Amino acid sequence: MKNSTLYKNSLLNDVIPFWEKHSLDLEHGGYFTCLDQKGEVFDNDKFIWLQGRQAWTFSMLYNQVEKNPKWLEIAKSGIDFLRKHGMDKDGNFYFSVTKEGKPLVQPYNIFSDCFAAMAFSQYAKATGDEAVRELAKQTYYNILKKKDNSKGVYEKNTDVRPLKGFSLPMILSNLVLELEDVLDNEEIERTINFSVSEVMDVFLQKDSGIIYEFVSPDGSLSDSFNGRLLNPGHGIEAMWFMIDIGARRNDTELIEKATKVILNILDYSWDEEHGGIFYFLDAMGKPPQQLEWDQKLWWVHLETLVALAKAYEHTGNKEIGEWYQKVHDYAWTHFSDPDNGEWFGYLNREGKPLLTLKGGKWKGCFHVPRAMFQCWKSFENIEAKERK
Amino acid sequence: MKNSTLYKNSLLNDVIPFWEKHSLDLEHGGYFTCLDQKGEVFDNDKFIWLQGRQAWTFSMLYNQVEKNPKWLEIAKSGIDFLRKHGMDKDGNFYFSVTKEGKPLVQPYNIFSDCFAAMAFSQYAKATGDEAVRELAKQTYYNILKKKDNSKGVYEKNTDVRPLKGFSLPMILSNLVLELEDVLDNEEIERTINFSVSEVMDVFLQKDSGIIYEFVSPDGSLSDSFNGRLLNPGHGIEAMWFMIDIGARRNDTELIEKATKVILNILDYSWDEEHGGIFYFLDAMGKPPQQLEWDQKLWWVHLETLVALAKAYEHTGNKEIGEWYQKVHDYAWTHFSDPDNGEWFGYLNREGKPLLTLKGGKWKGCFHVPRAMFQCWKSFENIEAKERK
Repeated sequence: MKNSTLYKNSLLNDVIPFWEKHSLDLEHGGYFTCLDQKGEVFDNDKFIWLQGRQAWTFSMLYNQVEKNPKWLEIAKSGIDFLRKHGMDKDGNFYFSVTKEGKPLVQPYNIFSDCFAAMAFSQYAKATGDEAVRELAKQTYYNILKKKDNSKGVYEKNTDVRPLKGFSLPMILSNLVLELEDVLDNEEIERTINFSVSEVMDVFLQKDSGIIYEFVSPDGSLSDSFNGRLLNPGHGIEAMWFMIDIGARRNDTELIEKATKVILNILDYSWDEEHGGIFYFLDAMGKPPQQLEWDQKLWWVHLETLVALAKAYEHTGNKEIGEWYQKVHDYAWTHFSDPDNGEWFGYLNREGKPLLTLKGGKWKGCFHVPRAMFQCWKSFENIEAKERK
Repeated sequence: MKNSTLYKNSLLNDVIPFWEKHSLDLEHGGYFTCLDQKGEVFDNDKFIWLQGRQAWTFSMLYNQVEKNPKWLEIAKSGIDFLRKHGMDKDGNFYFSVTKEGKPLVQPYNIFSDCFAAMAFSQYAKATGDEAVRELAKQTYYNILKKKDNSKGVYEKNTDVRPLKGFSLPMILSNLVLELEDVLDNEEIERTINFSVSEVMDVFLQKDSGIIYEFVSPDGSLSDSFNGRLLNPGHGIEAMWFMIDIGARRNDTELIEKATKVILNILDYSWDEEHGGIFYFLDAMGKPPQQLEWDQKLWWVHLETLVALAKAYEHTGNKEIGEWYQKVHDYAWTHFSDPDNGEWFGYLNREGKPLLTLKGGKWKGCFHVPRAMFQCWKSFENIEAKERK
C-alpha cells in the first residue's frame, strides 16, 4: 500500500470514526477524552485544551478534506462548549471543567488559550461566523499579552533564575499560520519573524545543533534541571512548523536548516537498545528529573513522522528517507492498535503499552489525526514527484 | 547475619558515611542532595524539605544512637541554613533555593514546613537551644494554620470539587510525636486524636480495607482522577505511624487494625509479575494519570520494611513475617548498591535502575537512614523475644 493511502485510510476509516463513535457528549456538548483501549469513557472531566484540539480537528477536516456536515456539527459542539464554559470573565481559558462545564482547575496554562484560538479560527473559516472569528482574534491578542508571564498568579518560580521556555515561540509559529484568515498580514509577518528567530537563533544551539527546552532571557544556557532539559519531540515538531514557514516563504535555506536539526535531534534521542525516541533527556547526560524520561510517547513519534515526511517532500534528503522508514516501522508496529482502533499513547522503554488508554488528560483527538492528515498530503506530493 | 546487625551496619558503615562524605556544602552550609551513583554532586540547587530531612536525620542519630559531635555539627549546618535562607518573611518555607540560599521556588508546599519543624525539634533536643525550640513550635502552629489551604495563593483547583488529602493527617501523626518535647500534652493528644481518626476512620475504607489518597470533605469517595488515586507506600508508611501511636497508648486494637491494613494494601499493590510494590494505582482499575505508576520506589519499599518489622514486633503475626521476608528479599537485592553505597531510588517495573542517582530533587538523606534505624531497633526487640 502507498503511504498516502495508508495515512488517508487510517485517518478516515479508523481514527476519526473512533472519536465520532466514542467521544461525543450528546448531553452537555463538548467531548469526553478519557477513553480506554476500546473507547469506553472512563472519566468525564473535560480538559479545555483537548476540547479546543478536537474542535480544531473536526473544523480542519471540514475545511481541508470534505464538507461533511456531521464534522461541522461535531466541531460546533466543542466551540459552543468552549464559548459557554471555557473562559473566566477576563477571557482566560480554564485548564479543566466538569462534564457540565463547571470550572475545576483555574487558567494557569496558556496552551488552553492557544488551542481555543486555533479552534475558533478554523471554525470561523468553516462557517463564516464573525463572532467566532472575533473571539479567535481576541484570544490571540490575550495570549500575546500574557506570553511573558503565562502562569500569572500561579507562577511559583521567583525571579532569581529567570528562564524562558521553548513551547511558546514554538506554538506561536504554528498558531499564527492557523490564524491567517483572522489576523492582518503585518501581525502575521511580525509573529513569524519573532518565532523563527527565537526557535532557530535562540533555542537552537550553534555548537550541538540541538534545541534546549529552556534558556536564560539573554539566550545563554543555565546549568540547572530545567536549563539542561531536552524534549526531543518538541524540537522535531517545531522543525515541521519551520518547514511550513519555509515553504510559505520559498525559504529553502530555512527548510535545509530545519532538516539538519531533525537529523541532529534523532541522532541523540533514538533509543539504540529498544528503539523509539526518548521523551526527555538531560543535555549533560545527568539524571533528568522526569521519571517518565525513557517512555515512548505517541505524539513524539507522530510529529517525527510528519517532520520527516515534510523534510523528505522538500529536500529528498536520503538520510531523512532512511530515518522516515525506521521511525515508521517502530511507530506503526508499536503504537497503532488494529484490534480496537486509534493509537496507544504511552509505551514503556521496551515498547509495551504502559497505559492502554486511547485518550486521557493529555491525549485527545489531535496528534493522531493531524499527523495522519499531514503525512497523507506530504506523501501525495512525494509519490507524485516519484511518478515523474 | 542477624537482621538487627544488617540494618545497624548498613546505617553506620554505609548510608551515613555516604552522606557525610558527599553531601556537605562546606562553603555555604546546608547539603547537596543531587548525588549521582558514586556520590558526585550533579546539581547544587537546595530543596528545602530535603535540607530539613537531613538536619533531622543527623540530629536524631545524635539523640538516639551516639553523642557524636560530627553529627551535631552536620545537623547545625542544615539548621543554620534553614534559619537563614529557608523562610519567607511570614515564616513559610520555600520549596527550593540556590546553593547560596536565594529563593527559587515559592512556599507552595507545606511539607517543607513539616520537615523543618521536625528538624528544629530534634536539634533543640540535642542542644537545648531555646530559640530553635521556639522556632519548631512556631513552625508547627503555622502548619496548623495553613492546613486547610496548604498551597495558599498557588492553589489552582477551584472549590467545585473539594477534596482533602491523606498526606497531611498522615504526616501530622508522625510530626506531633516528633514534637513531643516542644508541645504541651493537651496539644499532642488533640492532634494524635485528630490524625488517628482521619487516617483510620475517614481515609481507610471500611469495605475494601485500603486507604485512599483523596476523599471529599464529608469523607465520601469521588469518582475522579484524584478521588480514585491509591498510593500504597503512603498507606503503609502511615500504618507504622499508627503502630507507634498504638504502642505509646498501649492500644493493641489500633496495632492490630494497622497490621491488617498493611496486609490489605500489600495484597492489592504487589506486582505479581515482576515483584515489588507499585507506586500508584487507580482504585477502580482505570488508567492512573501518573505515568510513573508502575515504577518501584526506594521509599515505598523501605517504609514497608519498617511497617512490617514493627507489626511483627508487636503482633508476631505469621503472615506479616512472611511478607517481611518477601519484601526484604526484593528490596535488598534490587535497591541497595554495595559497589558505591546507599540505595538506588527509582527502578522500572522490571526492577532495573531507571535513574542511577542516589539523591535528587525528592530523594535525600532520610528514608534510607530512618528505615535502617527503625528496622535495627525493631529487630533488636524481635530477636530479644526470640531468644527467650
